[in-house]
Amino acid sequence: MNSKRTTPTLQDVANATSVSTATVSRYLNFPDQVAERTRKKVAKAIRDLGYSPNFGAKAMAARRTNTIGAIIPTMENAVFARGLQAFQDELRLHGFTMLVASTSYRPDIEEEQIRTLVARGADALLLIGHARNPEVYRFLKAQNVPTLVTWAFDAGSKRPSVGFDNRAAMREMATKVIGLGHRRLALISAETAMNDRAEARRVGIQDAMATAGLDVKDLKVVETTYGIEEGAAAFEQVMTSTSDTTAVFCGNDVLAVGALHRARDLGISVPRDVSVVGFDDIELAQVTYPPLTTVHVPHREMGRQAGLALTKLVKDGMAPEATELKTRIVFRGTLAPVNTS
Amino acid sequence: MNSKRTTPTLQDVANATSVSTATVSRYLNFPDQVAERTRKKVAKAIRDLGYSPNFGAKAMAARRTNTIGAIIPTMENAVFARGLQAFQDELRLHGFTMLVASTSYRPDIEEEQIRTLVARGADALLLIGHARNPEVYRFLKAQNVPTLVTWAFDAGSKRPSVGFDNRAAMREMATKVIGLGHRRLALISAETAMNDRAEARRVGIQDAMATAGLDVKDLKVVETTYGIEEGAAAFEQVMTSTSDTTAVFCGNDVLAVGALHRARDLGISVPRDVSVVGFDDIELAQVTYPPLTTVHVPHREMGRQAGLALTKLVKDGMAPEATELKTRIVFRGTLAPVNTS
Repeated sequence: MNSKRTTPTLQDVANATSVSTATVSRYLNFPDQVAERTRKKVAKAIRDLGYSPNFGAKAMAARRTNTIGAIIPTMENAVFARGLQAFQDELRLHGFTMLVASTSYRPDIEEEQIRTLVARGADALLLIGHARNPEVYRFLKAQNVPTLVTWAFDAGSKRPSVGFDNRAAMREMATKVIGLGHRRLALISAETAMNDRAEARRVGIQDAMATAGLDVKDLKVVETTYGIEEGAAAFEQVMTSTSDTTAVFCGNDVLAVGALHRARDLGISVPRDVSVVGFDDIELAQVTYPPLTTVHVPHREMGRQAGLALTKLVKDGMAPEATELKTRIVFRGTLAPVNTS
Repeated sequence: MNSKRTTPTLQDVANATSVSTATVSRYLNFPDQVAERTRKKVAKAIRDLGYSPNFGAKAMAARRTNTIGAIIPTMENAVFARGLQAFQDELRLHGFTMLVASTSYRPDIEEEQIRTLVARGADALLLIGHARNPEVYRFLKAQNVPTLVTWAFDAGSKRPSVGFDNRAAMREMATKVIGLGHRRLALISAETAMNDRAEARRVGIQDAMATAGLDVKDLKVVETTYGIEEGAAAFEQVMTSTSDTTAVFCGNDVLAVGALHRARDLGISVPRDVSVVGFDDIELAQVTYPPLTTVHVPHREMGRQAGLALTKLVKDGMAPEATELKTRIVFRGTLAPVNTS
């Protein structure tokens, strides 16, 4: 039909073997995932037609769209907005455009958006956290769309990530809080289902409790959706149900802002009556009253390094190394020694 | 090569005439943009092959990607995040996925992202504000990508929008402020270059000043980029250069949060010494101290209606009607009569 074409293509191999181009592609990239009979047929056709996988690779490279997708749980948390801004700035330096989708922390929406971004030709994807349906990772592998996880670092994961250790970060904070004499602890947490960061932060507090000889079951946990109002309501729930609580951990700064506000409304003085600590260190944490003691997440540096790693991956095929960034505690005005008066 | 295919395709027409499929497509959609010699060749091939443009049209329709792009100035302002959340929720009801790009208020980045989203097959685009290079609108028209403007309403524009009247909204606020006796006014504004909303808000204040017999040139204006820190620095600049200022308008709530914070640091009492008002009514406005008097923008309703309008446009070809939503002033604790003591 097209007499001008002289170099055999992936499609020619597929036609000659009556398999799909996806199967040929899988054979080339992950031969152990292809049935032996098919493998032999495809290998023969490649030899017969003189198909060169190298040429195919070049054609693939030329099909690059210079678009990288980022899928985040919510646009309403400034910490993601700031991190993505740095990610986008880095991508632009290398000629890539970023498209963002947000999931409202819903795995079904995330899957739909992954499919959409792949269908729209994204060269690569940035995902937040490791936890998702294994089917999704299989899909991304089959589609040959490289993926980088951020916002979480897990040395044990086989998937590369540019992130930080949520568990260790919260453990460090909890160790400080317990060191100030607090024993009755509560946590206002983001919902932990399919949110490995929120889960890790809770476990971090319990690590520190166990080390200090406290019963980890004594941690009062209230899970809530994201928002200032939600944080306020959860704080009231904590203080109503466990009025002896002396320190409230918040899974993120936005929940903490709500907690501080409700504390004032309830006539509870922070930090005199109750200490409140956050996580993220968004700009807002500096302008609450009192200013918020929180865990500083290096969101800009994380975005920049993730951008660089994904760029190298797409341009040069360099697999990113797992990169752990360090968090630190920023002491401001909402954490004090337990009030024993 | 593929004997199973019985219906001639666009590719078949292209092959038969040695032109690209893009040219055949252009012939079908904008024949006057195709050279006469090519036009005749393509017309002949279509007849010879029995290619049906109707079938082609159906294929085009089926090629709908169910993806709608939204391009916003920044993800760091919760008002856009909230508006887009409602927009996305509405799109999902109709089977569409949203992809977002953010421009950092830079027209060159916006143009690049418009091109990217069009190239990635977006069925339609949501844009913030009317002001942009006419070239961009010509490109979108040529590409046949329907576009809806939001966050601004301009009855005089030929382009449909679902938005609100920024100028009238700020005029209403300024009328209240002047009615409380304030005469020495300042504005901390977002940068007005290519931001028609910021520009309209400034003019709204000056409308009210003129009506009250004040000299519009007496409005002290400080333009700044977006952020809490930036709002704080601008507030200090205003109070240093014009210490007799009694009311400070802020172009958005985030700038106002910064202004309130710096006022406290400088020992300036709000609203006793200076009134401060915002614009947007993001959740944050309720938890500042004192809580912020601001203009409530119906961002969720705006997002929902924009989603519905774009969905109808893509699915049924129904051109959206210009829709004006109403803002209202929310009185909280930062606006008081001028202190004449």
